[in-house]
Amino acid sequence: MAQTQSTRSCRAHLINIGDELLEGVRPNGHLVWLGEQLARKGIRLQQASIVRDELAPMVEEIRQAWAGCDLVITTGGLGPTTDDLTREAVAQALGLPLVPDPEAEVALRQRFAKIGRQVSDLDLRQCRVPQGALSLPNPRGTSPGILLERDGKVLAMLPGPGLELQPLFAEQVVPRLRACGSACDGDAYVQVRTYGIGAAPLEAKIRPLLLPGMQLTFGTHSGVVDARISPGSSGACRDRMMEVARKVRDEVGDDFVCTGHACLASLAVERLAKLGRTLAVAESCTGGLLASRLTDIPGASAAVAGSIVSYTEDAKMTLLGIPADLLAQHGAVSAEVAAAMATAAAEKFGADYGLAVTGWAGPGGGTPDDPVGTVYLGYASSSGVWSRRIVVAGDRAQVKIRAVNAALDWLRRNLSRYAVEDAVHGA
Amino acid sequence: MAQTQSTRSCRAHLINIGDELLEGVRPNGHLVWLGEQLARKGIRLQQASIVRDELAPMVEEIRQAWAGCDLVITTGGLGPTTDDLTREAVAQALGLPLVPDPEAEVALRQRFAKIGRQVSDLDLRQCRVPQGALSLPNPRGTSPGILLERDGKVLAMLPGPGLELQPLFAEQVVPRLRACGSACDGDAYVQVRTYGIGAAPLEAKIRPLLLPGMQLTFGTHSGVVDARISPGSSGACRDRMMEVARKVRDEVGDDFVCTGHACLASLAVERLAKLGRTLAVAESCTGGLLASRLTDIPGASAAVAGSIVSYTEDAKMTLLGIPADLLAQHGAVSAEVAAAMATAAAEKFGADYGLAVTGWAGPGGGTPDDPVGTVYLGYASSSGVWSRRIVVAGDRAQVKIRAVNAALDWLRRNLSRYAVEDAVHGA
Repeated sequence: MAQTQSTRSCRAHLINIGDELLEGVRPNGHLVWLGEQLARKGIRLQQASIVRDELAPMVEEIRQAWAGCDLVITTGGLGPTTDDLTREAVAQALGLPLVPDPEAEVALRQRFAKIGRQVSDLDLRQCRVPQGALSLPNPRGTSPGILLERDGKVLAMLPGPGLELQPLFAEQVVPRLRACGSACDGDAYVQVRTYGIGAAPLEAKIRPLLLPGMQLTFGTHSGVVDARISPGSSGACRDRMMEVARKVRDEVGDDFVCTGHACLASLAVERLAKLGRTLAVAESCTGGLLASRLTDIPGASAAVAGSIVSYTEDAKMTLLGIPADLLAQHGAVSAEVAAAMATAAAEKFGADYGLAVTGWAGPGGGTPDDPVGTVYLGYASSSGVWSRRIVVAGDRAQVKIRAVNAALDWLRRNLSRYAVEDAVHGA
Repeated sequence: MAQTQSTRSCRAHLINIGDELLEGVRPNGHLVWLGEQLARKGIRLQQASIVRDELAPMVEEIRQAWAGCDLVITTGGLGPTTDDLTREAVAQALGLPLVPDPEAEVALRQRFAKIGRQVSDLDLRQCRVPQGALSLPNPRGTSPGILLERDGKVLAMLPGPGLELQPLFAEQVVPRLRACGSACDGDAYVQVRTYGIGAAPLEAKIRPLLLPGMQLTFGTHSGVVDARISPGSSGACRDRMMEVARKVRDEVGDDFVCTGHACLASLAVERLAKLGRTLAVAESCTGGLLASRLTDIPGASAAVAGSIVSYTEDAKMTLLGIPADLLAQHGAVSAEVAAAMATAAAEKFGADYGLAVTGWAGPGGGTPDDPVGTVYLGYASSSGVWSRRIVVAGDRAQVKIRAVNAALDWLRRNLSRYAVEDAVHGA
């Protein structure tokens, strides 16, 4: 049985290094990814800091993090150029000299020989480690990671590019954290993912099911509400937490999405593939985002035929064959048009199911009855055609994301609700 | 003339408060948005910290930030519940008592009366401020922001929701920073956005054009390379920087995208609207993301007719009328099919231009000649039909984003290159 609690409680501090992260050039993907990984391993990320490529503030931040936490992770600043200062900063903060790592140098020389490149003195900077630290081979890049264990604490320096950082952390850092009892073997919590119920009513349903001492936390994102159940002081094993999750599932009913971290789009693709059925999409206000989310999932082509993004009334008539009269009488944002779009999508693509979205994403548009944020969903299967009106909050970008989540959730409900009928009608 | 340099150099520290930001539930959008805003105002964001909803670490972080910087911004933790602790933390860190703000209380009571809600003692917690601080009215939410000026420094506490934070910062905090000489009136730098040239060759082109003392920094994101030119010690005014930017434009040629922050999608929509022309899209590997990016732009419906996401070979034949023989001979990922898709998109939607993307996004697929990451773009106009092969790096998600950027950039080039021919042929 997987160990659900680490043998000692571990507090982490993440330090992301790089000027670009502080200038709004791009989001800090490392924090999202590492934040989830650490939480799943039962490690509490106590704080995250983003600092510039400057030695003095880096040294200061590393020193404080090292004093206050059991695990310090740095990202970036390991490259060959003179503004890559993470090694120097760690060495100074911990009062250790930087020494060459012969193994890392051999690996670098082999890598460069293979691509016919000369090794310069600058390149060799990447092969130095603080004394007593270990190079972590990085087959996807030139800069190895570095791991330092000292005074019962761990410091992991990871390369900046995500494609190098993620496998290096999962394959080389996590096993060491597990070995020293800081990370648990399996997931530290059982997550129940829901859609359609608020965090407060969900909490009211879950609380009575918990064993004394069990902990409950919530995460919400664009309509999805996640409840994470962890052992806390109860000492419960994973099986006991799964037992609670099963009871939660019964209590929550249709609003239960899954146990774990699967997203609505991957669940839809998986379910369709299992049924051996295909889906076609017609989109107006979401403008392609619904199809994009579905096709983010590897292997989507087995389940998703495609989408018609009919962004104009003309396109709705020409591409989907929506009658001009229907558009004139009910408007492009209406239950009637959503149903017609879903039916047309399924027909045009020869798919088993059709899913449609039409609404007012804003900032312009809307009517007194259907203000900005109003969205109609359409669903077509061999059992029938339905439409549904929802209202979502937020700006244009958020309306798109929430409308897509609502559509994917409705697809999920319909696929389970009408599975039998669809089979009878031979959808 | 807009003032391009703040009268005194200002260093900022951003503190984002919230457990969810540390558990990978969602990205920290505040850092991206505020990071760009501060950079544009000439304020140097020195560090960003993300801390949990716990009093002691919040107090410690605020104390350090206040000691080391001229401007401290906090986000979140201003609500009515007992785990909203930002006010308490700031008061403790700065050694100030919390006092009720009568104006904020009046505003809250009016707001609640309007929606027929009782004001509880918990609600009134939101109307307290550290002594000497100012409530910043928040018409979009119940928690006002707070601004504290003291010892020549500024501390701004902003509410957590982005739709409340952003206007509050722009409308109430920035004017005060400008008044005390910490923020400049216009943008602090001139940004030259490029696509198709690397940061190193771009730097080689720009360096000789700079006046002595001018500063140059770079930002890269999914193929886009931004060069930011700021006055540095040159004391140059905005006009002189724009002069440099114009010279950079001449040097860079077709790789020049724009001066400023406009994204590739908004430039495409704007350009099409100006020409009075429409675009239709056909997508395979990008799965709807190209259409979604275009329709992120308010008013896109004037320029973007829609998209056909033909994710399967069947869909390419049925929806776009791509001949089965063409698919069989050249494969769905080929220059020939990309050209046919672009032509079909324009025809089916009755649009002036067609833009198509087909490629291998991975992780599966690819051929020895066209491995994962290979993408063919197609472009159709009244002047002709072209296709182009590109190779992009990254995982499935990154290939999608980079292929979309490449398609939008190619559209931009084609629209300027063939503007005359298109007009002659009456596209």
